[in-house]
Amino acid sequence: MFPYKTSFVLKKNTNQSLYLQLANQFIFYISEGKLSNGTKLLGTRTLSDLLGVHRKTVVTCYEELEEQGWVISVPKKGTFVKDDLPILNQQEFIGLNKEKNNNISSDYTFYKDSLLPEKEPLKSEDWIRINDGVSDTRLAPTVEIGRIYRRISSRKNIFKDISYGSTYGNERLREVLVEYLNSSRGLKITKDNLLITRGSQMGIWLSAQLLLKKEDIIVVGMTNYSSADITFKQTQATLKRVAVDSEGIVVSEIEEICKSSVIKAVYITSHHHHPTTVTLSAERRLHLLNLARKYRFAIVEDDYDYDFNYNHAPILPLASHDDRKNVIYIGSVCKTVAPVFRIGYLIASEAFVKEASKHRGYVDRQGDAILELTFAEFIKSGDLDRHIRKILKIYKERRDLFCSLLKSQLSKYLEFNVPKGGMAIWVKLNSEYTWEEVKAEGLNHNFSLGEWERYDMANKRHNAIRMGFASYTNEEIYQLIEKLGGIFSNLERSKK
Amino acid sequence: MFPYKTSFVLKKNTNQSLYLQLANQFIFYISEGKLSNGTKLLGTRTLSDLLGVHRKTVVTCYEELEEQGWVISVPKKGTFVKDDLPILNQQEFIGLNKEKNNNISSDYTFYKDSLLPEKEPLKSEDWIRINDGVSDTRLAPTVEIGRIYRRISSRKNIFKDISYGSTYGNERLREVLVEYLNSSRGLKITKDNLLITRGSQMGIWLSAQLLLKKEDIIVVGMTNYSSADITFKQTQATLKRVAVDSEGIVVSEIEEICKSSVIKAVYITSHHHHPTTVTLSAERRLHLLNLARKYRFAIVEDDYDYDFNYNHAPILPLASHDDRKNVIYIGSVCKTVAPVFRIGYLIASEAFVKEASKHRGYVDRQGDAILELTFAEFIKSGDLDRHIRKILKIYKERRDLFCSLLKSQLSKYLEFNVPKGGMAIWVKLNSEYTWEEVKAEGLNHNFSLGEWERYDMANKRHNAIRMGFASYTNEEIYQLIEKLGGIFSNLERSKK
Repeated sequence: MFPYKTSFVLKKNTNQSLYLQLANQFIFYISEGKLSNGTKLLGTRTLSDLLGVHRKTVVTCYEELEEQGWVISVPKKGTFVKDDLPILNQQEFIGLNKEKNNNISSDYTFYKDSLLPEKEPLKSEDWIRINDGVSDTRLAPTVEIGRIYRRISSRKNIFKDISYGSTYGNERLREVLVEYLNSSRGLKITKDNLLITRGSQMGIWLSAQLLLKKEDIIVVGMTNYSSADITFKQTQATLKRVAVDSEGIVVSEIEEICKSSVIKAVYITSHHHHPTTVTLSAERRLHLLNLARKYRFAIVEDDYDYDFNYNHAPILPLASHDDRKNVIYIGSVCKTVAPVFRIGYLIASEAFVKEASKHRGYVDRQGDAILELTFAEFIKSGDLDRHIRKILKIYKERRDLFCSLLKSQLSKYLEFNVPKGGMAIWVKLNSEYTWEEVKAEGLNHNFSLGEWERYDMANKRHNAIRMGFASYTNEEIYQLIEKLGGIFSNLERSKK
Repeated sequence: MFPYKTSFVLKKNTNQSLYLQLANQFIFYISEGKLSNGTKLLGTRTLSDLLGVHRKTVVTCYEELEEQGWVISVPKKGTFVKDDLPILNQQEFIGLNKEKNNNISSDYTFYKDSLLPEKEPLKSEDWIRINDGVSDTRLAPTVEIGRIYRRISSRKNIFKDISYGSTYGNERLREVLVEYLNSSRGLKITKDNLLITRGSQMGIWLSAQLLLKKEDIIVVGMTNYSSADITFKQTQATLKRVAVDSEGIVVSEIEEICKSSVIKAVYITSHHHHPTTVTLSAERRLHLLNLARKYRFAIVEDDYDYDFNYNHAPILPLASHDDRKNVIYIGSVCKTVAPVFRIGYLIASEAFVKEASKHRGYVDRQGDAILELTFAEFIKSGDLDRHIRKILKIYKERRDLFCSLLKSQLSKYLEFNVPKGGMAIWVKLNSEYTWEEVKAEGLNHNFSLGEWERYDMANKRHNAIRMGFASYTNEEIYQLIEKLGGIFSNLERSKK
């Protein structure tokens, strides 16, 4: 007979009522064939005595089992496991043991995409980790944003904004962004040109879906933002790479490609080229816009760090010169405020934005309207601009300190130009050293280079990586440079 | 000569400083060739007099133009537009006019996906609109969630959670969900089996990316959740449809398909089949699990309204019986709390979850950790369960009222079964009527059927649609049924 007494584990202090705990355990035993088809279950009185529960618990449990189709109750005869249930074909009896079976691999197969890199696990807190140029989240205005979020979520009429909504994003934020971007960046857009995204990456992803299929050509820099490269490659498009020099991506090379091939799009990070930090020159901006018109391609302009300029004012994006709507303009607040606030935008022709909004609905349906309303207020009130002015000053100091220490203490090992903007420095090692060596030696110093391999997607061995400077305090910058100095000294000694 | 005086519009009361307004307008005139290459600009003193601004404004403007590479300053000679700038090839001179040019279509082309339906624009507030079964956002605990959000965003150490983070989602919410789902739904998972998504749709989308390529086969119901259908079709996979009857999807038909074809996956909404609301029977659950093992396919189990049962306890998902990890289990809080809170999960084998997390990083990088921490607290504290108990009672009343009115007043036009759970009723018209007619007549009554065509993706002319009941108050239900009564009366008269 089935060992009723030892088979059930009932807990009093959980959210789940006793009858349901009992029923669910019955279901497992039935499905695994431990209680086989046609078996008569113990009478409710007997079982409740045996388990020390109220009889009503067992009665309700049996009713639930019948409602769900596992047993049938025959008047005056009792409750029986149904006759037609298959037994679950388990390799072994695993029962209620929750611990053991996590490593079982599934019977089905799925596709693994070799384009997608493994992420390096984050190191613990006493490690210094070089980053790509991220903001210092200790300076993020989370208290203020939290306050606005709460105020908005307490509004009497908020219920209108929190159901299924537009895949374009919240109306109010779209209006605020149109006004903000038109006045600050010289754009000439209306609400129909703007889709709210979860951040720049979603803008890149959506652009790729609309522009690229197998065998289409997209032009990118010889070194290029790796996430964009991967997103474009996922569509099976062909990436053609052109050189990047001190004036940015070399537009004359794009023109050469256009003469022999049809290209669908050019991806640029015009403000500060990723990863090299170079600004696209005025001449090349106009040249590229003319080419786009002549050869009918789209310019995907990823303006990821528009707000961070230390030597000059923010530079107008190509999109501001683009009366032909050939530029798809992508930006976000993720760099400016904090990566956690996934608010970005994609700006393009009305038709393109409409199609992009449809695609967006099948990835995550829609945005977070409360957060979008929060940022509408944060931007409209001038708080965003005040925040930018505040951190710009701090980041400029950090850039200057980082660069001066790098120069005074490490110039025998490496070279760099002081970046005019952004949050990272493009640092090239002298030919005696490689970043592989620095990485290996760094492991002895609790020092991680982060995902540095991604700066050389075209495998050019340029021996340069990005070093973010904005996220460290002055004290941390001193520590970082000191540690780096120790690593290079060791490398130098080991080479002698 | 260039008409300096009339060409510049400078505003005092904006965020943008005067020098930058001036510089940006210069840039437009230069790029459009109105100020041609080599042109000598007016001297700073003359221009400042002409425009009525401080001379320093013009000096700073010229410095900015030089820094950005539009002009060069020659000592003792003046400031000149650079020699090598191309002229933007504009069709017509549009200048600073922001209004006119929104309808210009771009020169490039992009792909339009004919699978993606047009969304019907939302009607204004005095319209009654039939929905798919959505929650009543007036009952959503936004005040409480806003309060938690603010508290979390004010934490001293919140900066650690708000930078670039794991594509799996916030650790704390993953832990809380593992505990919550294991204890309430009989799952046996660890953190490595769980990826936080933006809602069920992202779970479906990710599953489709990993499981399906061109020519792969996925089995779905004859009627099926249209967004899932579209997501699967976008991968170019083949959808095979099997019947759905009063016990849910007909598993024996799946077995027949398996005998002649290799299938990659079966998509089910086991708890309440979408759209027909039927619960998958115990026998078929076990049968399907056995088939998955035998024929090595994945079961994508979309448990979109687990929490809403009126006649019985929530039914254990197939995933709870699945020690072979053949079930990919998808759920979210979007139905339970409010669609605005884009928090969902995908549960599968560790390897599948890892691959899915990589894909996720290229769509929107990561989730919103503050919101994820907010829901960790909302769930852990028992607030979610309390909220569910509260609305379950209300929705049950609404279901009963809606069904009783539908039956007493409209049964000569339509038929339905009272759904055991969920938020919608599957309503079939008698053969004299069609929903097309109801829709057309509805327009005369400020009554919209919503996106009702999506319930018949296989074009079976089953003459049934879903009618959500949960989002209306009792009063609104009376109004809705009365309006529907008027529409049918008119239709009936017009047929005589």
